[in-house]
Amino acid sequence: MPAAMDEVTAALRYARSRRAPTLRRLVTLLRFPTVSAEPRHSADMSACAAWLARELGRIGLTDVRVRRGRVAPVVTAAWHGAPGAPTVLVYGHYDVQPVEPLTAWATDPFRPVQRGPYLYARGASDDKGQLMAHLAAIEAWLATSARLPVNLRLVLDGEEEIGSPTLVAAVAAGWRPLTADVALVSDTWMLAPGAPVLITGLRGALGASLEVSGPRRDLHAGAFGGAVTNPAEVLATLIASLHDKTGRVCVSGFYDQVRPLTERERQHLAGAGPKDSAMLAPAGAALGHGEPGFSAFERVTRRPAVVVTDLCTSGEGRTVVPARATADINVRLAAGQEPGKTAELLRRHLQARIPPGIRGRLRIRGGCPPYTLDPRAPVVRAVRSACRNVFGREPAMLPSGGSIPFVSTLAAARPIDVALLGFGLPDDATHAPNERLYLPNLFRGTDACIELYQQLLT
Amino acid sequence: MPAAMDEVTAALRYARSRRAPTLRRLVTLLRFPTVSAEPRHSADMSACAAWLARELGRIGLTDVRVRRGRVAPVVTAAWHGAPGAPTVLVYGHYDVQPVEPLTAWATDPFRPVQRGPYLYARGASDDKGQLMAHLAAIEAWLATSARLPVNLRLVLDGEEEIGSPTLVAAVAAGWRPLTADVALVSDTWMLAPGAPVLITGLRGALGASLEVSGPRRDLHAGAFGGAVTNPAEVLATLIASLHDKTGRVCVSGFYDQVRPLTERERQHLAGAGPKDSAMLAPAGAALGHGEPGFSAFERVTRRPAVVVTDLCTSGEGRTVVPARATADINVRLAAGQEPGKTAELLRRHLQARIPPGIRGRLRIRGGCPPYTLDPRAPVVRAVRSACRNVFGREPAMLPSGGSIPFVSTLAAARPIDVALLGFGLPDDATHAPNERLYLPNLFRGTDACIELYQQLLT
Repeated sequence: MPAAMDEVTAALRYARSRRAPTLRRLVTLLRFPTVSAEPRHSADMSACAAWLARELGRIGLTDVRVRRGRVAPVVTAAWHGAPGAPTVLVYGHYDVQPVEPLTAWATDPFRPVQRGPYLYARGASDDKGQLMAHLAAIEAWLATSARLPVNLRLVLDGEEEIGSPTLVAAVAAGWRPLTADVALVSDTWMLAPGAPVLITGLRGALGASLEVSGPRRDLHAGAFGGAVTNPAEVLATLIASLHDKTGRVCVSGFYDQVRPLTERERQHLAGAGPKDSAMLAPAGAALGHGEPGFSAFERVTRRPAVVVTDLCTSGEGRTVVPARATADINVRLAAGQEPGKTAELLRRHLQARIPPGIRGRLRIRGGCPPYTLDPRAPVVRAVRSACRNVFGREPAMLPSGGSIPFVSTLAAARPIDVALLGFGLPDDATHAPNERLYLPNLFRGTDACIELYQQLLT
Repeated sequence: MPAAMDEVTAALRYARSRRAPTLRRLVTLLRFPTVSAEPRHSADMSACAAWLARELGRIGLTDVRVRRGRVAPVVTAAWHGAPGAPTVLVYGHYDVQPVEPLTAWATDPFRPVQRGPYLYARGASDDKGQLMAHLAAIEAWLATSARLPVNLRLVLDGEEEIGSPTLVAAVAAGWRPLTADVALVSDTWMLAPGAPVLITGLRGALGASLEVSGPRRDLHAGAFGGAVTNPAEVLATLIASLHDKTGRVCVSGFYDQVRPLTERERQHLAGAGPKDSAMLAPAGAALGHGEPGFSAFERVTRRPAVVVTDLCTSGEGRTVVPARATADINVRLAAGQEPGKTAELLRRHLQARIPPGIRGRLRIRGGCPPYTLDPRAPVVRAVRSACRNVFGREPAMLPSGGSIPFVSTLAAARPIDVALLGFGLPDDATHAPNERLYLPNLFRGTDACIELYQQLLT
């Protein structure tokens, strides 16, 4: 057994002996209510960043810094002890989605509870549990060999769930801590326990908010109902205009830039990807529905979507013609599409449909392009070796429907390959109440990271 | 001058000398946050009811009682010292609409603030300020003549803004405190200061909530967007189906029962009612819009309307395909329509449009029929006399677009005429942020009540 293999074995042994403290640290991390979308959590973001910085120092990383961000700090650290070896950028995020409605949670989202093999908490899967696998792997290497096989730059984002404004700008500005030969990100899913996936592409995203306003103030529904244009009804008409009955997006030109699926890709996705029933059953969706002619998995990975994520009105339950009504629209972009161009098409579609006497305002809150992995990239071979060693099987090579703004922005700006190897499961309820992590994935994920750092060298 | 006229004069003089304490008492009443729609205000409802009961005792009414209601107490009192004279039921309500969004208020909605001739607070106009005119009038009579010209039953409702469930049931049960020869209600508006209105009709109302649900839980917008039916988008399509582009309601059969406007009525409304511009300008609505062929005032009084008052989703701002989306729908019924029949038409319309895999549920939260005043009723003459004496002019005889569930239910069940003589103004912002009362209306309203009690005898 070569020396490096001895070192991997020692690191794996160490990590396995330290599972209980790793879990305790994850529980501590999950107790910070790091909801980046809510300004009232600003102090929690800082406290969590400070805790992470201490943790990075403790496990032996250097250059630990908490850098001020637009909304929340970016925590960075490094290890530069492998001259000549490649530099690996490991990215994760410590911010989480909001938790409302709280009544839908069986337990407090910020008081992690273990039930059987699951740990329930907001962020357990997305992404605190997954970033913890990397921290445990780094700790194991440094504790057993006092070195890592590669140079490392670690970037922990506090703004992923709001589009990573600080890091997206940092990419454009050529920020030094982002310089690396390859990037590793664990913020995605496996097909099932023991069935790893190397993500071959991410959809892009466009966050938009459409506000429709009419009367200067909310109007008594009896005194005015039937005599003025109702912004809530105009909003409904605009939203209804976005899709036809089959689920196809009606925005003119919307699909024009989408890179068509080849027959070979379709066969691969049909064979290696989840079947419609396997995707829909855990979601509790009785039926699939969407652009005709595509499977559910094709629809969410290689086809774009316009998703209305929220509707609200200024009336807030009072008996009024509301002065304003708002929809949050989340567009997911397929390979080939550009956020700016798509935003323009959406704006044109909506503007043409605003009736007289009503003001419509489409605010774009950020966007990122789609990401596609080059299947010939060296990192692909490294991930495959690591998966064979840890899971005893090759990773499935599949695209994801999700978006990671930093990843796609970085990949669009620099010649860097990004390996997305995640440890979530399809039924983790990410972004939803009762989010959870399948704990065996945390521990095998740690093993996979230990192996992967080594494989990136060879 | 006959003796009774001396008594009226004395009461008027007394009321005028007591304007400052009347205003102070109104301020106290307005400080109770009596939002009947919000269970957390339950204790405030009780506290306000107890304060009102003390107040009714103080001004000299008898049989004062705080009666338990479904959501909030009903406060009743009486005066039975005029044997042979008619018994008058005076109805008002001490509950108010919710105040959200608080940020839209220039001042705290429950800390009344006087600015020039206006008193700003939730409920200032609807209806605490208006019921206070009756209390001040009763006090003035009893303080100066130790009697009222008529027998009186006072009913103060704590549930008007949620459809008056307790009192609507009490009407059906033949509740004794509701027995009277005629009813007086001040919960409506004047055309302008000095221009009183005797309301000739109220629209009926139907409160409904439409919930559309699909997946069992909120789903990550990236992982599922484009592959499942989105309840928010289905809700939008259903809402959009309720009206055509002109503003006409598309629910089949919706207008069938509506009593048509006669040419004479149209001429009267055009002459005596507000012009479109006078209605729309204070509302800050640039343009009128609604059922073609009718004026704005006709649309809100003699034509029915389907008004979407609120939209919301289970996502609450998270980036998800929401599991549920809900719309509050407030239907206003014109003379001739029945709530039950209209609810059935609405249900049928919506059910036919629910797509596969989606559940739709229409919950009816209460309804009341329209109310029409018999123009030959004796109370009409009494109101006209009182208005001539106090305002120096006849009241305009006009229908209102509003609904008062107790009034229309009572009038449908019993042979009783209800005079609706209100002291609000069209720009009071009832149900909206920055509600206010034009204080001179409180004082002239008190005078009008003093006169009216007398006129009901003659």
